[in-house]
Amino acid sequence: MSGLSHSEVTVFLLSIGVMLGMARAMGELMRRLHQPAVLGEILAGVILGPTILGMLNPMASQFLFPMEGPVAVAREGLVTVGIVLFLLVAGMEVDLSTAFRQGKAALSVSFFGMAIPFALGFGAAWLAPGLLMKVPEGRELVFALFFATALCISALPVIAKILLDLNLFRTDMGVVIVASAIINDLAGWLIFAVVLSMMSTAAGAEGGAGMSVTTSIGLTLLFAGLTLTLGRWVLHRILPWFQAHLSWPAGVLGMAITMALLFGAFTEWIGIHAIFGSFLFGIALGDSRHLRERTRATLDQFISTVFAPLFFASIGLKVNFVESFAIGPVVVVLLIATLGKVLGCTLGAVLAGMNRQESWAVGFGMNARGAMEIILGLLALDYGVIDQPMFVALVIMALATSMTSGTLMQRVLKRQAVVNFADLLNARCFVRSMKAQDRRGAIAELSNLIVAGTSLDRAAVEEAVWARELTMPTGVGSGVAIPHARIKGLTLPLIAVGISDDGIDFDSPDGAKARIIFLILTPENDNGAQLQILAGIGRMASNRKVPFKLAESSGFTEFLATLRADQAEGQAH
Amino acid sequence: MSGLSHSEVTVFLLSIGVMLGMARAMGELMRRLHQPAVLGEILAGVILGPTILGMLNPMASQFLFPMEGPVAVAREGLVTVGIVLFLLVAGMEVDLSTAFRQGKAALSVSFFGMAIPFALGFGAAWLAPGLLMKVPEGRELVFALFFATALCISALPVIAKILLDLNLFRTDMGVVIVASAIINDLAGWLIFAVVLSMMSTAAGAEGGAGMSVTTSIGLTLLFAGLTLTLGRWVLHRILPWFQAHLSWPAGVLGMAITMALLFGAFTEWIGIHAIFGSFLFGIALGDSRHLRERTRATLDQFISTVFAPLFFASIGLKVNFVESFAIGPVVVVLLIATLGKVLGCTLGAVLAGMNRQESWAVGFGMNARGAMEIILGLLALDYGVIDQPMFVALVIMALATSMTSGTLMQRVLKRQAVVNFADLLNARCFVRSMKAQDRRGAIAELSNLIVAGTSLDRAAVEEAVWARELTMPTGVGSGVAIPHARIKGLTLPLIAVGISDDGIDFDSPDGAKARIIFLILTPENDNGAQLQILAGIGRMASNRKVPFKLAESSGFTEFLATLRADQAEGQAH
Repeated sequence: MSGLSHSEVTVFLLSIGVMLGMARAMGELMRRLHQPAVLGEILAGVILGPTILGMLNPMASQFLFPMEGPVAVAREGLVTVGIVLFLLVAGMEVDLSTAFRQGKAALSVSFFGMAIPFALGFGAAWLAPGLLMKVPEGRELVFALFFATALCISALPVIAKILLDLNLFRTDMGVVIVASAIINDLAGWLIFAVVLSMMSTAAGAEGGAGMSVTTSIGLTLLFAGLTLTLGRWVLHRILPWFQAHLSWPAGVLGMAITMALLFGAFTEWIGIHAIFGSFLFGIALGDSRHLRERTRATLDQFISTVFAPLFFASIGLKVNFVESFAIGPVVVVLLIATLGKVLGCTLGAVLAGMNRQESWAVGFGMNARGAMEIILGLLALDYGVIDQPMFVALVIMALATSMTSGTLMQRVLKRQAVVNFADLLNARCFVRSMKAQDRRGAIAELSNLIVAGTSLDRAAVEEAVWARELTMPTGVGSGVAIPHARIKGLTLPLIAVGISDDGIDFDSPDGAKARIIFLILTPENDNGAQLQILAGIGRMASNRKVPFKLAESSGFTEFLATLRADQAEGQAH
Repeated sequence: MSGLSHSEVTVFLLSIGVMLGMARAMGELMRRLHQPAVLGEILAGVILGPTILGMLNPMASQFLFPMEGPVAVAREGLVTVGIVLFLLVAGMEVDLSTAFRQGKAALSVSFFGMAIPFALGFGAAWLAPGLLMKVPEGRELVFALFFATALCISALPVIAKILLDLNLFRTDMGVVIVASAIINDLAGWLIFAVVLSMMSTAAGAEGGAGMSVTTSIGLTLLFAGLTLTLGRWVLHRILPWFQAHLSWPAGVLGMAITMALLFGAFTEWIGIHAIFGSFLFGIALGDSRHLRERTRATLDQFISTVFAPLFFASIGLKVNFVESFAIGPVVVVLLIATLGKVLGCTLGAVLAGMNRQESWAVGFGMNARGAMEIILGLLALDYGVIDQPMFVALVIMALATSMTSGTLMQRVLKRQAVVNFADLLNARCFVRSMKAQDRRGAIAELSNLIVAGTSLDRAAVEEAVWARELTMPTGVGSGVAIPHARIKGLTLPLIAVGISDDGIDFDSPDGAKARIIFLILTPENDNGAQLQILAGIGRMASNRKVPFKLAESSGFTEFLATLRADQAEGQAH
């Protein structure tokens, strides 16, 4: 509590509260627009930093986010811990066994997916650096190596999310993509570690504890090799001991974070950045099947919600994105990065024997760069290897590729995103206390509601649902019923929900009256949507407690809140 | 990443890694010795700080934990965030509705439990300050007020833990104690906030944004009042909206931490400390039944495992506990604190109509001070209101009362701590693959194991268990059997466990063969222990997945790890 004065503590807490709040709010906004949350988190920093707040009100910006002095140092310390822990979680997502399983195809995709962008990037930065930035004399090689590496790294977390959204995660193609991204991540970061140790030496700083580049590279490779073999083996053996003999989950959580910090300190000491150490430790830890889902979820949730947004927002504080925007580098970087990655990965997939459509999908999927690119760029900026316009170009490239990757894959595969029935609910199509007392009445009441504001014919809808109901009753047990029909001319699925206080008999197998009735209309030819909606509601109803709680909701918001929380908890298990 | 140099980042990460690792390790050690974890966490700081490491190797201590410069500032920033978030979690444990339910008795206990130690403390510090420390001229009133307040605050978290361990948490007496501790906490902190604003003015610092003491106190009371009424009401209403419309649990987690930081910044600004704001926000948040168990658990687990240990360890870095130890203040503080609290609470309980035995138990229970006392003391030390020997005396008093409280309650009530069967298992009494093929053989095999190293007679034990088995078979389903008997002359329960690969028929209601056999011996007259062990195993077996996983364990450590994780997850739900 000493070290920072009273007013410094006030500013420090206020500033990180504002950063976190803004980052979370913008992250949620982006999620609503089906964009990666990291985009919003970076935007939050742009708003609070020199780009916007600094322009509108330099005093406020300087007061809240000073670039020097104790408040700045305390903020940097917290952000550094944030990025180290974020890389721990990112490493835990890397599943080495997946990479082994699809060995051949993944090797082919990741090899060409790295070699081609690397060659293109190196060529461009070496032969025509002027297109990108004014490279300081004597730094040509380091810059070219950095630029080549930056172009060849993918972003596993973003890719995994896209595959989940498209329901491709467990398909053969999905596994190939994830496996390639894992190999790509691992190899890319190793190359980057080497480039980093060159950068820190080139920077002429006190870096690397005075080691030569060769020593630093040798130590890096040795350390990575040991962590991924011996380290993994030891962790797998001691985790059960931690769980058996220490308090749970504090024992494992505390160990994971302690080790991530110590590994980070070690790699920082040998001259590459701290994030490399915590990333490697994360891989070794996440690979053990003894790490329980709950522990993984607690680490992931807290770090992704608190530390990662703080880190990404802090980026915008350092750079003026408007002043440092230069169209030249942005276009060149985007072009080379996309061309190299998409062509390289597609080629790799074709050579591994995948068909053309799938190969293009692999190429587009692997093009997402996400957060990793930005972290790389920030380090290069700190070491003075790149200038601000080049950094801005890298950030824009990373965000643009992440934002388009999913859409492009979807186009190539003509695949629709998975429908989550909760996304289709809205307050207008919700009745807290239904008037109807029987099946027919309930269907009529909800049909009336669902057609309001559409061009659908009420009578036709009611008739179609009732006809379907007569072929087989739709009570699914646990007090839930799902009357439904396919409707000609409909383009998107619609759902109306009613809660019946007394319950309505929908002839459910468990004999219980239905208290929650979902009326579901789907387009005539969209088999997938109907199946996904029915399966989603079925899964929800399989835990008796959830329908019971839903039926007691005081209104739509509480109803949706219960549903969302149940879905999120189901995913975490 | 700028702001801190390369080598400063290295030292910073290394030092917090070492602090966290040491704090967790010592915390676990104390838990093993049935002592509060906070004791170990403070000891970790004492080991790493000037008291021990600083004596043995001043260079290492100065290198890792400098008291000035960027590394110190970054560490202080992180520790400040840590204590603010710890108070958020502590606030969330305060359940105002519990306090209302046992209103009369709780009011009586908490009133006398505060008034008497307050009066004693104020009297001693005002009339004979020399017994405690050399009070600087002009600070006599502030010192006396601080000392009086410090003596009258209890520690809800420690008290709740003791009641849980003694299985008293849901008894009438337990509820009275918890309710009293809640009122005590709330009133004590309000009084402390008032003293704090006097302290910060007395310190002559820039504190309180230049406000007068009256303004500062007025704002504090207004803010507390608004947070606990309007704030609670608003939170209760917006939580479902957050869960329905934002990502889960990130939406609620991010909001909780953002608000804790902002409330902290506000109270720091009005001249009381930041912890007061996050504590109040925690109470308002924790009170809503819309806050889901999972969100609560994630916040609690991460903060208690990472931030709280860092904070408590940091205390030991500031003070030399050997140099600043003075027997005088330690004895006086311990005496006045214990006398005032125990007598006051016991009197309050008697006046509320409780019997003598229970009243003493209430008195001893409320005497635990735990972490809160130490936080108070640290603030007073920072403001220069107390000196280091006085601070050390307060820390020792807080730890000593926390350590003895449970034992004294147990003595007065002649009550035993709850037996958790997992604590009774050990590797010596575990067989991975039993040879026995039938019931009789299994009982013989495990009896043989359990008597080794004891003075029990093998044949007698086997006969007693078999006789019990014949009256009613002990297969409980899900592949678990629990043959058991009471044994004359035994003083503590014993358990042996065997896993049978083929399964042994124990005539279970579900017809499944038993794969895990627990042989349980309990003292002849200890009904409680036997019931608690059988119930614990029954609860474990009620989730079919757990026995299945246990039966596949590769050895004792994995067996115990699975069991512990299941128990912890069961508690969190």
